Amino acid sequence: MAESVERLQQRVEELERELAQERSRRALGGGDGGGGRARIEKMSPEVVDSNPYSRLMALKRMGIVSDYEKIRTFAVAIVGVGGVGSVTAEMLTRCGIGKLLLFDYDKVELANMNRLFFQPHQAGLSKVQAAEHTLRNINPDVLFEVHNYNITTVENFEHFMNRISNGLEEGKPVDLVLSCVDNFEARRTINTACHELGQTWMESGVSENAVSGHIQLIIPGESACFACAPPLGVAANIDEKTLKREGVCAASLPTTMGVVAGILVQNVLKFLLNFGTVSFYLGYNAMQDFFPTMSMKPNPQCDDRNCRKQQEEYKKNVAALPTQEVVQEEEEIIHDDNEWGIELVSEVSEEELKNSSGPIPDLPEGITVAYTVPQKQEDSVPEVTVEDSGESLEDLMAKMKNM
Amino acid sequence: MAESVERLQQRVEELERELAQERSRRALGGGDGGGGRARIEKMSPEVVDSNPYSRLMALKRMGIVSDYEKIRTFAVAIVGVGGVGSVTAEMLTRCGIGKLLLFDYDKVELANMNRLFFQPHQAGLSKVQAAEHTLRNINPDVLFEVHNYNITTVENFEHFMNRISNGLEEGKPVDLVLSCVDNFEARRTINTACHELGQTWMESGVSENAVSGHIQLIIPGESACFACAPPLGVAANIDEKTLKREGVCAASLPTTMGVVAGILVQNVLKFLLNFGTVSFYLGYNAMQDFFPTMSMKPNPQCDDRNCRKQQEEYKKNVAALPTQEVVQEEEEIIHDDNEWGIELVSEVSEEELKNSSGPIPDLPEGITVAYTVPQKQEDSVPEVTVEDSGESLEDLMAKMKNM
Repeated sequence: MAESVERLQQRVEELERELAQERSRRALGGGDGGGGRARIEKMSPEVVDSNPYSRLMALKRMGIVSDYEKIRTFAVAIVGVGGVGSVTAEMLTRCGIGKLLLFDYDKVELANMNRLFFQPHQAGLSKVQAAEHTLRNINPDVLFEVHNYNITTVENFEHFMNRISNGLEEGKPVDLVLSCVDNFEARRTINTACHELGQTWMESGVSENAVSGHIQLIIPGESACFACAPPLGVAANIDEKTLKREGVCAASLPTTMGVVAGILVQNVLKFLLNFGTVSFYLGYNAMQDFFPTMSMKPNPQCDDRNCRKQQEEYKKNVAALPTQEVVQEEEEIIHDDNEWGIELVSEVSEEELKNSSGPIPDLPEGITVAYTVPQKQEDSVPEVTVEDSGESLEDLMAKMKNM
Repeated sequence: MAESVERLQQRVEELERELAQERSRRALGGGDGGGGRARIEKMSPEVVDSNPYSRLMALKRMGIVSDYEKIRTFAVAIVGVGGVGSVTAEMLTRCGIGKLLLFDYDKVELANMNRLFFQPHQAGLSKVQAAEHTLRNINPDVLFEVHNYNITTVENFEHFMNRISNGLEEGKPVDLVLSCVDNFEARRTINTACHELGQTWMESGVSENAVSGHIQLIIPGESACFACAPPLGVAANIDEKTLKREGVCAASLPTTMGVVAGILVQNVLKFLLNFGTVSFYLGYNAMQDFFPTMSMKPNPQCDDRNCRKQQEEYKKNVAALPTQEVVQEEEEIIHDDNEWGIELVSEVSEEELKNSSGPIPDLPEGITVAYTVPQKQEDSVPEVTVEDSGESLEDLMAKMKNM
């Protein structure tokens, strides 16, 4: 009898432990903490229901990608795991990227539930912790490294630089840094880090009114950085003044953020796997379904000394190429019709531009300033405050150049 | 002692029951079956972390949407809960749509894991069941009605028609039907149902090579239906012949499907909440980041007699409007520069079109045939097989018209 009681007590303890485990697993993320499927050693093109890679490997048969498996050799860092960053991470995870490094210091809140990815039961968890759990469950073949901190503090910035430089493995940097943050300060920090390291990165952004967004590819020395020119967004056909009020909560939509994450990761795949045309800038105006593209050369008088250094490096590298390749390079990259190299590549009718460019009269057609530089500036960034004052982009650039 | 044993046995039974419940909840979907958050009676604009609607209600303050709460009064039917349909359902759920009706007869497979939404632990469950569980957990304020059947059988078609007609509530139809299916047969079935009922719907599609997609708005009598003209897609700059091989598994990407779901739901929101420009057709060519728009008038000789009837209705309604409104209507809708009313609204450079239109020389610029009509045709649809034979769209239309 005593033995029976003991056995029963053991069983109760065992069950209580299992139940607690189940509950914490369920609270953390989607399914089983140990992964909903077993790890897969090698991507297979086999067309069976149980193969999570069959539809991706089919890209080779379709003639789109020549070597899809190469995706497992890449590491990508994502800064900001919010409305755009979390979906970006999920897409790359489902595509079977080799390694993801996630940086964020925010917690999941119910107020985030109008965007994809996070679920109400994750409220209160750190975004990187909740994301890692869900993503690992979706694809256990991907390696994850998460950092729950703000990259803009001096101490964390050092660590961030170190992780970018050794992100793939010790001594080998990540292949790309993706900026999915929601403020200017963090963007400037990423810009500084990437130009110091010569690290290629992509920026993304969504307007405060939730109806426009953009992505941008920055190759240090080759394309304009965030200190070369004010970051640009797509003009929406609404009164911009409504956006500038202090303390007003920004609007957001899962649609706009899903589209921006989609075009961002598409650009990442095209860049890494070498297919299609990689866009230097692609905008999305949801009000008019208008998607402008353009490219910008760097500013030789850029305020960021690392950007100027990278420009010199780039020039030297291009000059060192055999003549034929130089010509090809130039055709691909340089689209300058003014000193600043700003040009709309896509041609759009006058009518369409009028509809899309809204009330700011002096900026280049269809394009507007994407972020307001905060009033209080620190060290390395020039004291230019971008306001809806009717000041033209040319004026702003002349100002920056004269500093 | 006996009492103690009994108590322990009861406790073991109780724990086993709870554990089984936890496990089945976790197997089904994300979090708690009972909802990760409590239901909310009325959408509030209050800016607090605990309000899942604050960022949506902010659309009013930003001047984008005049009455966001109206979203709770709408019902939307989604046919096909795959790569596009599941993300479409999630976006509408997070936006707080009133009611969703989901139709699909497929099961979740690991082969679906390269697209967003479903997770590996849901493999084997029906797509509608798994989707309902996850969506209800994300937003318990939305009403769900799911049907695990194929709409193309005679019996199910009757039931499908009934649910569309009474989708909002008895006697009140859904506000929109969204086609997110992957085959021509299902698209034709939705077309037939919607034209019989005079139901406005939107179509979506992604190419078999995963790098292009489109959305289309069909208002019976006002815009071209699927029997008026072959459904059109966006040309990609690749060899189309690689797509036509029998038995080859289609490729897919979470990026392209996410973008298509995003532009689809954006169009739904603009249509239902009355903001921005609703697109009749928006294409996405991922290889060149090219997004053509256009609109098509219906074919007065359309094979679908319900389409012809709806055209008569529409004409009568427009004629009955006061003169000023008629003019406005016409300006908005009719963009005809040929008998078929097919015109590219967006203006694109010759160069860009050449890059985007690929190897099919005779179709209108930038546009190509989206689906191959299956060889074996049934009753109501004409025997036109669309092949990559170099036959122009004009030829195909002339053929259809002469039938």
